[in-house]
Amino acid sequence: MWIAFQGEPGAYSEAAARRLVPDAETVPCQSFEDVFAAVAAGRVSRGIVPMENSIGGSIHRNYDLLLEHDLHIVAEVELDVDHCLLARPGATATALKVVYSHPQALAQCEQYLRRFEGVEIVAVYDTAGSAKMVAESGRTDAGAIASRRAGELFGLEVLAEAIQDFASNITRFVVIGRAPAPEAEATKTSLVFTTSSTPGSLFKALSCFALRDINLSKLESRPIRGRAWEYMFYVDVDAARHAPSCARAITHLGEVAKWVRVLGSYRAWGASASAEQALSMLP
Amino acid sequence: MWIAFQGEPGAYSEAAARRLVPDAETVPCQSFEDVFAAVAAGRVSRGIVPMENSIGGSIHRNYDLLLEHDLHIVAEVELDVDHCLLARPGATATALKVVYSHPQALAQCEQYLRRFEGVEIVAVYDTAGSAKMVAESGRTDAGAIASRRAGELFGLEVLAEAIQDFASNITRFVVIGRAPAPEAEATKTSLVFTTSSTPGSLFKALSCFALRDINLSKLESRPIRGRAWEYMFYVDVDAARHAPSCARAITHLGEVAKWVRVLGSYRAWGASASAEQALSMLP
Repeated sequence: MWIAFQGEPGAYSEAAARRLVPDAETVPCQSFEDVFAAVAAGRVSRGIVPMENSIGGSIHRNYDLLLEHDLHIVAEVELDVDHCLLARPGATATALKVVYSHPQALAQCEQYLRRFEGVEIVAVYDTAGSAKMVAESGRTDAGAIASRRAGELFGLEVLAEAIQDFASNITRFVVIGRAPAPEAEATKTSLVFTTSSTPGSLFKALSCFALRDINLSKLESRPIRGRAWEYMFYVDVDAARHAPSCARAITHLGEVAKWVRVLGSYRAWGASASAEQALSMLP
Repeated sequence: MWIAFQGEPGAYSEAAARRLVPDAETVPCQSFEDVFAAVAAGRVSRGIVPMENSIGGSIHRNYDLLLEHDLHIVAEVELDVDHCLLARPGATATALKVVYSHPQALAQCEQYLRRFEGVEIVAVYDTAGSAKMVAESGRTDAGAIASRRAGELFGLEVLAEAIQDFASNITRFVVIGRAPAPEAEATKTSLVFTTSSTPGSLFKALSCFALRDINLSKLESRPIRGRAWEYMFYVDVDAARHAPSCARAITHLGEVAKWVRVLGSYRAWGASASAEQALSMLP
């Protein structure tokens, strides 16, 4: 199975893909747009993109891309994002003169990096690419911030582990495909809807699920820019789309909301789910 | 009035503070933690922190800091965040050899920066600080990404404007203080609450507002890490805390939710509100 991801080999998105499908052929892409385009055009069978981080919040850009494409969420997987300070064998943290990484990783390790006074912090648009750069440089005074796996891929040693400012740094990724996931496998459904701007319209929308005892595992409003007082809502429900009560709830939501889109119904793998469970994952 | 903000003079947080109080004495702090500590200790009368960005989503860290401190949101202000490429007079974009900025700004300008092949992209933990660095370097082959105002402060020219990857980049800031805002001024109230993990408990919580025709302008769930199936909810309602129906709704919410905290009741200034309106703002 070919799975497109944003970044270079060793990126966190690639690690998330491998949690689900260990022998996947992972295909690096420059941008999230390219991941969606590769799946839509059939150049790969699946794509994987981050949707939410436990510190940074929802990644609105990927919700927008889901809405712009006629693709489906077919699985979800969480990943503990532990940033490592990597360098060539023989290097020490105190002798570093330069540290490379993706700007997001540099932002997440801000407090840690402040101790390296006088060290140049250089942004490159890829965590794993920064590890590759350090490996190829031959320098022992250059470091990279990336995953442990990126270090292994490029023969670097781990000088420090879990260096992000907040210990629990979990990212939720979704796998996208051209066809929906098999109905029997789904345990969760993601929807986006808009309501009219009258008070209580969201409450009516949520009643479709609440009155059927369907739990929500995510609910988030997002203002629609340029349209004052109009909101888009992201909702994840703990039910398969085609389970009778959920199917009725979605029909009911269609009567109440201005507009509804089901992004997918799928199985979710938490950060602590074992790899064995995930092995049989994607159809 | 002394207002603490995270960053150096010329930072976006400082610009947001000046939208509300043009003649404020703004006090730079190294971290969001330091902003909260300065207000709590009475070293400044107010602090300003970003809560949400239209592309990046909610800044959970600042919600956490609000919960960790006994402080109040006393005002809200939105700011259009337009990143500029700045350099010393005489510099041209094509001759740049290095570009400095905060990792978050570098991340938001990723597509734009990809055109600068061979140019070193260096992270410094402050946008305005990057402008200062370029000004002091004396180099005409170094650029900074920061606000137009940072450029003015440090005598730099604008080589390119609004270079962020997505045109509409609005950040919502809140002003924090030790005492609540005057009741008469408030139009909006921010709350955080948790519910029991039974299906429908969120629905009951929202009914406190919906059944009283009180509109929500933000609603977001956030999983409580380490406690499976438990969630914290961020809610903004379009009503003053002490308006009779809102006061009753909050009392009602106290019966339904496991735990409730009112973060503040205050007046909000949208990105397009005129500066004149804001002049009389803070008491």
